[in-house]
Amino acid sequence: MADADAPVFEHVIRVGWGDCDPAQIAYTGHIPGFALEAIDAWWEAHLGGDGWFQMELDRGYGTPFVHMSLDFSAPITPRHRLICAVWPTRLGETSIAFRVDGRQDGVLCFAGAFVSVFTTAGSLAKRPAPSEIRQLVEPLIRPADSNPYAE
Amino acid sequence: MADADAPVFEHVIRVGWGDCDPAQIAYTGHIPGFALEAIDAWWEAHLGGDGWFQMELDRGYGTPFVHMSLDFSAPITPRHRLICAVWPTRLGETSIAFRVDGRQDGVLCFAGAFVSVFTTAGSLAKRPAPSEIRQLVEPLIRPADSNPYAE
Amino acid sequence: MADADAPVFEHVIRVGWGDCDPAQIAYTGHIPGFALEAIDAWWEAHLGGDGWFQMELDRGYGTPFVHMSLDFSAPITPRHRLICAVWPTRLGETSIAFRVDGRQDGVLCFAGAFVSVFTTAGSLAKRPAPSEIRQLVEPLIRPADSNPYAE
Amino acid sequence: MADADAPVFEHVIRVGWGDCDPAQIAYTGHIPGFALEAIDAWWEAHLGGDGWFQMELDRGYGTPFVHMSLDFSAPITPRHRLICAVWPTRLGETSIAFRVDGRQDGVLCFAGAFVSVFTTAGSLAKRPAPSEIRQLVEPLIRPADSNPYAE
Repeated sequence: MADADAPVFEHVIRVGWGDCDPAQIAYTGHIPGFALEAIDAWWEAHLGGDGWFQMELDRGYGTPFVHMSLDFSAPITPRHRLICAVWPTRLGETSIAFRVDGRQDGVLCFAGAFVSVFTTAGSLAKRPAPSEIRQLVEPLIRPADSNPYAE
Repeated sequence: MADADAPVFEHVIRVGWGDCDPAQIAYTGHIPGFALEAIDAWWEAHLGGDGWFQMELDRGYGTPFVHMSLDFSAPITPRHRLICAVWPTRLGETSIAFRVDGRQDGVLCFAGAFVSVFTTAGSLAKRPAPSEIRQLVEPLIRPADSNPYAE
Repeated sequence: MADADAPVFEHVIRVGWGDCDPAQIAYTGHIPGFALEAIDAWWEAHLGGDGWFQMELDRGYGTPFVHMSLDFSAPITPRHRLICAVWPTRLGETSIAFRVDGRQDGVLCFAGAFVSVFTTAGSLAKRPAPSEIRQLVEPLIRPADSNPYAE
Repeated sequence: MADADAPVFEHVIRVGWGDCDPAQIAYTGHIPGFALEAIDAWWEAHLGGDGWFQMELDRGYGTPFVHMSLDFSAPITPRHRLICAVWPTRLGETSIAFRVDGRQDGVLCFAGAFVSVFTTAGSLAKRPAPSEIRQLVEPLIRPADSNPYAE
């Protein structure tokens, strides 16, 4: 049901001195955190201002990660903002997958794939995707390999 | 020469799930990093887009910290953006002091005082404040204890 | 009641590449986290293996910070382990203060003062220091300015 | 040339309160950093005390990452130390692959695969694996999917 024309959300991250290592580029260990922040911001933008925090505390469910995979293709530096394009690529019975592509100045720096499962808050017991999520996410699914900036 | 009417810079930080600890508030260990990011953003906003990264790599000087002090008065959570007010409070021969106050929803969460020294890039040798910095900073100095939101 | 001969606890931190910034030293924003980790390890060593996590979840109280102050006197690098000396300096009715001194290769890198209050877990309501804590801490209090390595 | 009997290095990480999120488990965004720290410690243990920092600054080469992939199978908490088993799984002409498996109390928490390329320090230009590295690494290569704790 993936729709290559579904809109893509962008989250902007300010990369600073403190993100960089002695090679003068963002430390690899921080990059997964950038991508996760972009997914958290995706939820916030699509779920009425609620990110993971409100999801767990107010809505009663969580989305812990079971997988992440990232390819790094260009260094990230403080010279440009990091623009993270985020989109859901699959919604299973109890899981959801996201793609996050990070770009600086138009150059792809990393491409990441992330899989979470739905759980009941306060436990780590798996549960089906909440129906409010199913309704929200289904129209936004795009293929994992669709370039959101392709003409 | 502090001027209580000098403008105050604000830097906005998105606090997320990943910043919080099991007490459901931002972990104390992350808060100094928020304040430092706000100072880095202050430089970026006032130095033609150059933060600490460009200062060290392009301009040839750095500003390592010799002191920080923070008082925490209210918890920080993802429910609001963290608005950091930043202003220089003193410019010495070889040092500069900043105040950073972090607020959420109008409530003061922390007040911090920070002192850096000027160094030559690539070394940690102290040097006088660069004249371009002196010109920039002097008109912006406010008293440390001036509330930027006071009427 | 501070006793300058009370023993001092040491916590060892491995400083790595990922802790360092483009100036090739540990990023200032990470140093408060080093000191807090050392205090957490102090509790773990003195409270039967329980750090802040077990204190909050199992013992029903927390110790959120209300103040921290650090002076930085030498850069921290991966060339040596960071040895953090930790000791309590004061135990009030509802608060506790710690000193943390970080050294590398015998050189003092930072000296920090930290104040926490006791709270009931799951809330941020202040409470008196638990009696198990009072018994534990009182004999370990040393003056804030006592050098643990002085002859 | 992988040898399933090659020894496996273990790096121990103290997981603390500050690593955990409101779900009372280590935040996913910190776990790649744990694995990277374990690889950095692997180098340090095998390269005469030199980790990435000394590799870049003293030996003149670096190993930036081009890929990472992690599967998360159990939550990580402060209740046990995190034991990271690290081993090289492949040494190419210009690249090296590592496996990092993190366990707590004997339970596999994550399994990660990491690929770096060799570069000349101070640039990001790819170069062949240094011969000192080739000699060191070749006898230590194990299959990616070999369980180091299997009988």
